Amino acid sequence: MARNANINDDARIVAVKPPAVILCEPQLGENIGTAARAMANFGLADLRIVNPRDGWPSEKARAAASRADHVIDAVQVFDSLEAAVADLTFVYATTARSREVPKPVRGPDEAAAKAVALGAGGQATGYIFGRERWGLNNDEVALADEILTLPVDPDFASLNIAQAVLVCAYEWRKTATDGVLPFRLSAEEHPPAAKDDLFRFFDHFEAALDEVTFFRPAERRPHMIRTLRNIFQKAQLTEQEVRALRGVVAALERRETRTRRDRGGGENGD
Amino acid sequence: MARNANINDDARIVAVKPPAVILCEPQLGENIGTAARAMANFGLADLRIVNPRDGWPSEKARAAASRADHVIDAVQVFDSLEAAVADLTFVYATTARSREVPKPVRGPDEAAAKAVALGAGGQATGYIFGRERWGLNNDEVALADEILTLPVDPDFASLNIAQAVLVCAYEWRKTATDGVLPFRLSAEEHPPAAKDDLFRFFDHFEAALDEVTFFRPAERRPHMIRTLRNIFQKAQLTEQEVRALRGVVAALERRETRTRRDRGGGENGD
Repeated sequence: MARNANINDDARIVAVKPPAVILCEPQLGENIGTAARAMANFGLADLRIVNPRDGWPSEKARAAASRADHVIDAVQVFDSLEAAVADLTFVYATTARSREVPKPVRGPDEAAAKAVALGAGGQATGYIFGRERWGLNNDEVALADEILTLPVDPDFASLNIAQAVLVCAYEWRKTATDGVLPFRLSAEEHPPAAKDDLFRFFDHFEAALDEVTFFRPAERRPHMIRTLRNIFQKAQLTEQEVRALRGVVAALERRETRTRRDRGGGENGD
Repeated sequence: MARNANINDDARIVAVKPPAVILCEPQLGENIGTAARAMANFGLADLRIVNPRDGWPSEKARAAASRADHVIDAVQVFDSLEAAVADLTFVYATTARSREVPKPVRGPDEAAAKAVALGAGGQATGYIFGRERWGLNNDEVALADEILTLPVDPDFASLNIAQAVLVCAYEWRKTATDGVLPFRLSAEEHPPAAKDDLFRFFDHFEAALDEVTFFRPAERRPHMIRTLRNIFQKAQLTEQEVRALRGVVAALERRETRTRRDRGGGENGD
């Protein structure tokens, strides 16, 4: 939650109207709270609850929300799912099971694409999540425009509510921000090495290896040089890393020189 | 978890070697368990734990795993992160904060693309997740090939371990299966109406409306007909739905007729 000096400001700005999350008759306050936290992680704030079994407000929900207080404080409670979605224009019903309902079935990525497109035009959208034990009934699914389901392993399909909310909220934010991450490898802080830097390192390195007759037999030299150069090309070195490597080579040159001197050589003064 | 007769069998088959999940010094058994459950949801099974604070095995972990016993039973415990990733060839370190480390930073979708590409070639990959309180230290991040972070709201960035595992596992499975969902709207069970069916419904509907002189003034008839036809085109009706609508029109025709007869009209026998 702490502010981070290196945060990419683009990751803060979301110009798209976020969807509402509607929990239909949730039983446990903990699940409401963890759903609220998952929403906050991905920038959603409009949480609506239909007939929470244990009432509202809920201290268990607030504790489980782990400081997503702005979501908990703004919760709206309704006594019917119809009322909870009344002001929305496009609504998904999430279900884990196939239904005898002739409605399109979408994954969270497809649903996010639609919700972002509608939200960019200012439309109010929503995702309905069902009860812990048995989800939504068919009358409730009939209130939604489309069905949303997750690409789970069919042999272990039981997600809890907060997990389903998390994946939907993640896809929504990823789509709404076009995949902006809070931070990336910064080319300012870690400027990549120009090829010229790299080539001068290669020259230095290979000269040091020539000095110790590393390339044997001599006709293998071109092949071995290509192998070594490829290693360092693949590493996508920064300027600082090239400097570090040149320091390494210089240090080894001196050591090698010292060692040979110790051996009583001395034919190489540098 | 129950088998569902309508499950798309493609959603069961994943030909790609799944990544390992490595939890570095987790404190709470609950978090290990919910991470195991999240893995099972998306078809991951190789869970490795480095120095779990409260020891192993953990009954709290098993309870929180909510029947992902196959993941819990196969857990491997290590006394160093190096040992935990020793057999892997490509490893992500997940972090929530920007690091002074010149490593590429990827989102879960980009990481999944790489992990699936490598896994399709039989390579063993892994995702490292840090401690609940403060994640991974820089020496631990240095053991990884690349950094992974989630596209969270920077102002509310604290995901718990299981949530981070869930999103990574979700993206991995979505990528590995090319987005196959456990079920879709079945064109076999709900055959879409052929246009010919729809046009016969239009004829029936519009004749019924002509009968009650709905189209007034007459010159507006073509426009009003287009409006009504567009409504039903957009609904992408199934064969069964067209039959239901024709039943509705027939029923309303009879009612209208009866009503007019009751009024003493009788000029229209049908």
